[in-house]
Amino acid sequence: MDIGDVLVRRKLLLIGHFVLTSGKTSPYYIDLRKFPSFPEFLSVVDEAVVKVKDLGFDFIVGIATGGVPFASFLACKLGLPMGYVRLEKKGYGTDKLVEAEISGRNVLLVDDVTTTGGSLEKAIIEITNGGGKVVGALTIVDREEGATERLRKLGVEFRTVFKISDILRSLSNKLNENERKIIEDYLGGVK
Amino acid sequence: MDIGDVLVRRKLLLIGHFVLTSGKTSPYYIDLRKFPSFPEFLSVVDEAVVKVKDLGFDFIVGIATGGVPFASFLACKLGLPMGYVRLEKKGYGTDKLVEAEISGRNVLLVDDVTTTGGSLEKAIIEITNGGGKVVGALTIVDREEGATERLRKLGVEFRTVFKISDILRSLSNKLNENERKIIEDYLGGVK
Repeated sequence: MDIGDVLVRRKLLLIGHFVLTSGKTSPYYIDLRKFPSFPEFLSVVDEAVVKVKDLGFDFIVGIATGGVPFASFLACKLGLPMGYVRLEKKGYGTDKLVEAEISGRNVLLVDDVTTTGGSLEKAIIEITNGGGKVVGALTIVDREEGATERLRKLGVEFRTVFKISDILRSLSNKLNENERKIIEDYLGGVK
Repeated sequence: MDIGDVLVRRKLLLIGHFVLTSGKTSPYYIDLRKFPSFPEFLSVVDEAVVKVKDLGFDFIVGIATGGVPFASFLACKLGLPMGYVRLEKKGYGTDKLVEAEISGRNVLLVDDVTTTGGSLEKAIIEITNGGGKVVGALTIVDREEGATERLRKLGVEFRTVFKISDILRSLSNKLNENERKIIEDYLGGVK
């Protein structure tokens, strides 16, 4: 599967000039929340199963809400129990962050996209506080702005199905020279 | 599977005296958000598949966040695309309510628990506005406080894997006489 082509065709990846909420500019925008609407998502789940099979986990936790379908499909394929973690309190109801029985579990933590790994780190803290051990973290796309390094410091094995640099390079024959230069500069800067 | 026994043992169903946020009192409290942590959840998914197989849907939408694992497991089992609907705007990001490509789709709407069917109705409106047709709605537990009637008025077929009256009656041999009377009175009142 040419994932770059799929993401652009499904309008999950936009190429252009984007100002992020942080104020930084980016030559691409990615939002995978609608990815489970498309049949290619099932192939990605199968690829993900292969990527993590050596990690020795017995429970899967997804980061709400974007990571929950991916976590659920993995759990369904592997026949494992799962749950989710919310990183913002709702302010009503039982107000628990971790909606999962993780005590004593070896957890695979799952999200759709990571940038700096900040959400993954917050989730690891919540799961650890709840008595679970995060043995690995998995995303569909790593935007490669620090997640690998951050997870390494936390001692958690990090895997991603796709790296944004590989995705963008696979698209370069569809870009004009100016677009290609902007993306190459961007990739050079974040690496 | 004796679902009442499972839910009590897994502490997903509490029997006692509860004051709901509406001010009403209830002899039970149910919260299924942690249900996917337990292996019995997989059996419920299998039962659910049988309950809805005649409805002619080609897409599944879960109500965030509690309904998303259930929707995802169903989609995984049936090999169907899926997405989710949020009933509260997050106030940032792209702020879409329906995170699914539902235009032209025949949708099965899924949640974990329903009481009056209010969330189901809101989700049906959002999906309809997005060009999808809700052909059926499915929950794990119906608290039987109006969802069936509300969905009937909307012309949407409603199915539930379990009714709370069946669950509570299955538990009655584990209750003392006073608890049994309170639950019978409650069930009489809501029917």
